[in-house]
Amino acid sequence: MLKLRVAYEGTRYLGWQLNGSFPTIELELSKAFLQIFQKPIPLLAASRTDRGVHAEGQIVSANVPSSLSLDKLKAGLNALLPYDIVVRDVEVASEDFHPTLLAKSKTYRYEICYGSHQLPRNRLFSWHFPYPLSFEAMEHAASCLIGTHDFKSFCNQKENESYEHHIRTLESIKIHPLSLSRLQIEVKGPKFLYKMVRNLAGTLAYVGVGKISPDSIPHILQAKSRPEAGVTAPAHGLTLFEVEF
Amino acid sequence: MLKLRVAYEGTRYLGWQLNGSFPTIELELSKAFLQIFQKPIPLLAASRTDRGVHAEGQIVSANVPSSLSLDKLKAGLNALLPYDIVVRDVEVASEDFHPTLLAKSKTYRYEICYGSHQLPRNRLFSWHFPYPLSFEAMEHAASCLIGTHDFKSFCNQKENESYEHHIRTLESIKIHPLSLSRLQIEVKGPKFLYKMVRNLAGTLAYVGVGKISPDSIPHILQAKSRPEAGVTAPAHGLTLFEVEF
Repeated sequence: MLKLRVAYEGTRYLGWQLNGSFPTIELELSKAFLQIFQKPIPLLAASRTDRGVHAEGQIVSANVPSSLSLDKLKAGLNALLPYDIVVRDVEVASEDFHPTLLAKSKTYRYEICYGSHQLPRNRLFSWHFPYPLSFEAMEHAASCLIGTHDFKSFCNQKENESYEHHIRTLESIKIHPLSLSRLQIEVKGPKFLYKMVRNLAGTLAYVGVGKISPDSIPHILQAKSRPEAGVTAPAHGLTLFEVEF
Repeated sequence: MLKLRVAYEGTRYLGWQLNGSFPTIELELSKAFLQIFQKPIPLLAASRTDRGVHAEGQIVSANVPSSLSLDKLKAGLNALLPYDIVVRDVEVASEDFHPTLLAKSKTYRYEICYGSHQLPRNRLFSWHFPYPLSFEAMEHAASCLIGTHDFKSFCNQKENESYEHHIRTLESIKIHPLSLSRLQIEVKGPKFLYKMVRNLAGTLAYVGVGKISPDSIPHILQAKSRPEAGVTAPAHGLTLFEVEF
């Protein structure tokens, strides 16, 4: 079994997961493996990133038979993959390696450029929020979100899918200033609900602009009602940064 | 007279300067001004950035008659400009303000991602150099380039144009590590020759990979011959960062 660390720009894709012949990361990786091994290779990813979401450290298992040189396999995959998908590392994992079941935690980063304009350089990877944001208010709100809570207010309804319960643990939420008008919300936890990170980011932005009081976060959690929290922040600000095992 | 600070992603453009109906930054800005003032507004830029070169701090003068609110003008221009051009600031300058003649220094940044692969996130703004680079060798070479020299070896021939002489002053060259496999060469000086910054970057990369010895920089300068220096680094790694007056 191989363990791959993969980076991609999600702009052109419907997400990680295979979806017929629609453009997905899994489809592109599968095509590259097929070309090299001349047979379909089963792939699994730690996170089924959504449409438009990026990754710097997606972890993918590939059930590969032969023992090709890892360096050559990486170079071969990167030569076949499109410009917006890159294999960063390839290593041998134990035969029972499973990137979804064995993941201990995932770290996501959500980037926001705030103020009147956004530098063109950031436009594909940052949400442009056209108002000033209060860093202090956002940090206060973030501190109320850390820990184990029922996060139903931060979970979108997914078609044909429902959760047994909405209790999740946020190990950390950090807000890093990246420049005078750009910040990053870094969220780490073992498991997330559907669109939970983007709902946390959208809610923190609403707190930053004064639309939601940081003191109302406990109430929003208790309400267990999606409309109580803020907007779902757009996909292109989100990056799966790291998966730990 | 107005002084604008403009950022753009150069990918889609032939450069700053108007060139018939070909896509240029000047054309897009001129169209936005024409739409607002209903007459052509003369524009001048501090640097005629080349095809594919980006800017974060291009300075543009606009000979504008009326005294519209500066905030409204900025918002109006940004609403009319395409997604890859942004007006960061608009301020009133003296009537004789001239961004080219009055510029005291320009700072350019050249970004290189080195090693086997490049993160998709950096691909539009960094040169991917597929070998390891020695930071120390590059810093040593850079130190030999600072100061006033004949930079003919770092100047490309431009059609229908020639320089009286090739003596220029490099106020500083700094090499900043941005991550484990990404660096930025920051170059500051009052005036540069054609493609000089990209030739400095290409030469420093050749030094970093061991193709040129850092000790041969004085010889390369003395030779006054373009083939003695390294390759012209590609346009998309270069950003006009700042202009000082």
